[in-house]
Amino acid sequence: VDGGGLSLGKGRFEAFSDGVFAIAITLLVLGFQPADLHPATNDGITRGLLALWPQYLVYAASFATVGIMWVNHHALFGKLKDVPHSVVIVNLALLMIVSFLPFPTALLGHFGLMRSPVIYYGLALIAASLCFGALQYMVNLVPGERPSFIDFLKRRNVWNTIGIVAYGAGIPLAYYSPLATILLYAAMALYYMLPIGVRAAADTRAPNA
Amino acid sequence: VDGGGLSLGKGRFEAFSDGVFAIAITLLVLGFQPADLHPATNDGITRGLLALWPQYLVYAASFATVGIMWVNHHALFGKLKDVPHSVVIVNLALLMIVSFLPFPTALLGHFGLMRSPVIYYGLALIAASLCFGALQYMVNLVPGERPSFIDFLKRRNVWNTIGIVAYGAGIPLAYYSPLATILLYAAMALYYMLPIGVRAAADTRAPNA
Amino acid sequence: VDGGGLSLGKGRFEAFSDGVFAIAITLLVLGFQPADLHPATNDGITRGLLALWPQYLVYAASFATVGIMWVNHHALFGKLKDVPHSVVIVNLALLMIVSFLPFPTALLGHFGLMRSPVIYYGLALIAASLCFGALQYMVNLVPGERPSFIDFLKRRNVWNTIGIVAYGAGIPLAYYSPLATILLYAAMALYYMLPIGVRAAADTRAPNA
Amino acid sequence: VDGGGLSLGKGRFEAFSDGVFAIAITLLVLGFQPADLHPATNDGITRGLLALWPQYLVYAASFATVGIMWVNHHALFGKLKDVPHSVVIVNLALLMIVSFLPFPTALLGHFGLMRSPVIYYGLALIAASLCFGALQYMVNLVPGERPSFIDFLKRRNVWNTIGIVAYGAGIPLAYYSPLATILLYAAMALYYMLPIGVRAAADTRAPNA
Repeated sequence: VDGGGLSLGKGRFEAFSDGVFAIAITLLVLGFQPADLHPATNDGITRGLLALWPQYLVYAASFATVGIMWVNHHALFGKLKDVPHSVVIVNLALLMIVSFLPFPTALLGHFGLMRSPVIYYGLALIAASLCFGALQYMVNLVPGERPSFIDFLKRRNVWNTIGIVAYGAGIPLAYYSPLATILLYAAMALYYMLPIGVRAAADTRAPNA
Repeated sequence: VDGGGLSLGKGRFEAFSDGVFAIAITLLVLGFQPADLHPATNDGITRGLLALWPQYLVYAASFATVGIMWVNHHALFGKLKDVPHSVVIVNLALLMIVSFLPFPTALLGHFGLMRSPVIYYGLALIAASLCFGALQYMVNLVPGERPSFIDFLKRRNVWNTIGIVAYGAGIPLAYYSPLATILLYAAMALYYMLPIGVRAAADTRAPNA
Repeated sequence: VDGGGLSLGKGRFEAFSDGVFAIAITLLVLGFQPADLHPATNDGITRGLLALWPQYLVYAASFATVGIMWVNHHALFGKLKDVPHSVVIVNLALLMIVSFLPFPTALLGHFGLMRSPVIYYGLALIAASLCFGALQYMVNLVPGERPSFIDFLKRRNVWNTIGIVAYGAGIPLAYYSPLATILLYAAMALYYMLPIGVRAAADTRAPNA
Repeated sequence: VDGGGLSLGKGRFEAFSDGVFAIAITLLVLGFQPADLHPATNDGITRGLLALWPQYLVYAASFATVGIMWVNHHALFGKLKDVPHSVVIVNLALLMIVSFLPFPTALLGHFGLMRSPVIYYGLALIAASLCFGALQYMVNLVPGERPSFIDFLKRRNVWNTIGIVAYGAGIPLAYYSPLATILLYAAMALYYMLPIGVRAAADTRAPNA
């Protein structure tokens, strides 16, 4: 619309985004540090590895969240050929939050299920969801390529808003039980993965599919 | 089958999977930490570098295992055009385990050939094999694209099951000799790499090749 | 021109460059280290996370700088089919600086807004800009594919030079206020992201677009 | 030749190799650790950053070595369509060494220009060159796609052998001057980058170009 020079071919745009998603998801493992385990006896290490169970849960929740965000990121750009500059910028903001997630994940691994890092983790998830919502909004503004904005608001946005509400609800919940918050966040990732969640999102693309 | 909106083009699916395999395999090196070597004299460093020999073995075994899993991952999707949602999800589970492997590898590097981290490493390999088996099962269910499920069960599954049995056998073996377990795991990676192992797997694709 | 054997297909050249950009941008998060936070109480962690605000700013500035450099890198090669050897080498030099940026970023995270790491960070940004300018110079020398060198000098080079001047001005500024320098650098990244900055760059491609 | 099931499409093979090269080259920066710098004063940090000069040299040498190996890796597969299983396996061995290079690089960063880590670094470069030579040998055995093996032996192998000899010569040299060894290794990377080095390699492809 406003000159090809300001848009980007989808191929390289997706390759870069995929790269950042793939790296961020793989860096999550750096939250596990052998040096945190002691004493260095067979029993000590075994006990230490068992005591990491909340970290396994958080790792799985983070991995599932980034993974499903990648799946939906792909679905979002399904039919676009060129990516306008505004979308490139909002996408960079999303990637900035996604790339940041290994830190809150590692924080939970380091300190365990304490209230402060759990809330911090929830805030990071909210920031990622807000960026994803903004990206959806921008992409759906691209004319002629997407279902109507009305349909978009009715379905996919509702679906993303459910996530923001759940992530937000996890924050006061952490004052009672940090574990409950993490279980809620893991459940959200599962919900987004289930066909029902994906279908709710996919429905918004139906007119163009 | 159940709506294009729920499947993913193979191109980006493979690009993301390749990215995670490539990053996980490259993060294995982070198990080597210069700070673990001392005293900081030429002789001390040389002795320390030689004493790392079990870690070199584990690094090579992990690298070979992830590498060959990538080769087989590629072969698995040879003729598919779209990847159904169920396969995307099981694939995410596999990638979650593959991305996790740098931790058990680093654990063995940090503590050396002790029983507890060796068993933990074996459990991680079993989890990866189970996910790979589940992925094979899901992919082969995609209609019209694959050899019959009977053939699949007869050959490729047998081949993956051999891996699970060997990884499982390594666990009691670690009570007698952690080194023997690691040698067994390295041998399995070599077996999977040899043309005979690849052919056993490749044979299951023959009807479509 | 001087033999196909000395040039590289753009596809794999871009894939490798994209990979390095994507990884360097994702490694920026490793500047955040959970172990830097203490005491390990809810209040202590919360205060520590709030006290990280300069690091959040630097993370965002680095992410935006690498991100926008990637966008412009893509634009630069828009119409080229083969990449001459000289460009491959200058590109490697640029990637070497881009890959290095996680260190100055982590340095600022570790020491906070002190003069010495801020100046170091500014020098790294200048080095990256110089390499990017050299890359632009080399790419624009490729015959028949680019606007005239005169146009190039008039516009895109001016635009890159503004960056070098601003990064340079940040160095004496750090003697008065390291924070002011970081704000200047973040503002530069925002400027490069705004359509006006992108358009200024895009204009130089207009004759070929 | 021996069944499509045992070879790999070049596209995904190159994508995976590119990914590993890109990640390994980017992980080199992790050899720089802010915590190694002290005291945490402006003067102390500045002196510490200046004292890192041998590490900058090693970083540049490693980056150039991996970078040029990637360029030559690309050239090597120029006209191949399918990659035989044997080449896939030898390529995995090469990638295993390339992925390992961040450790010797970090070792030199941690201990400085001492004899023991310099020799270790040289041994890693020799291992990488041997794997690259083996890969060249395997690729050139693929029938009908490459210049004759005689031509190959005459030119490209000579070129790789020069590298192995130089890396080998650096080892006794380290007993007199570790710095001289590092300068020799950096000079080799520069030589491989210069058009003359590239042309020597490119010449071997001439009959097919």
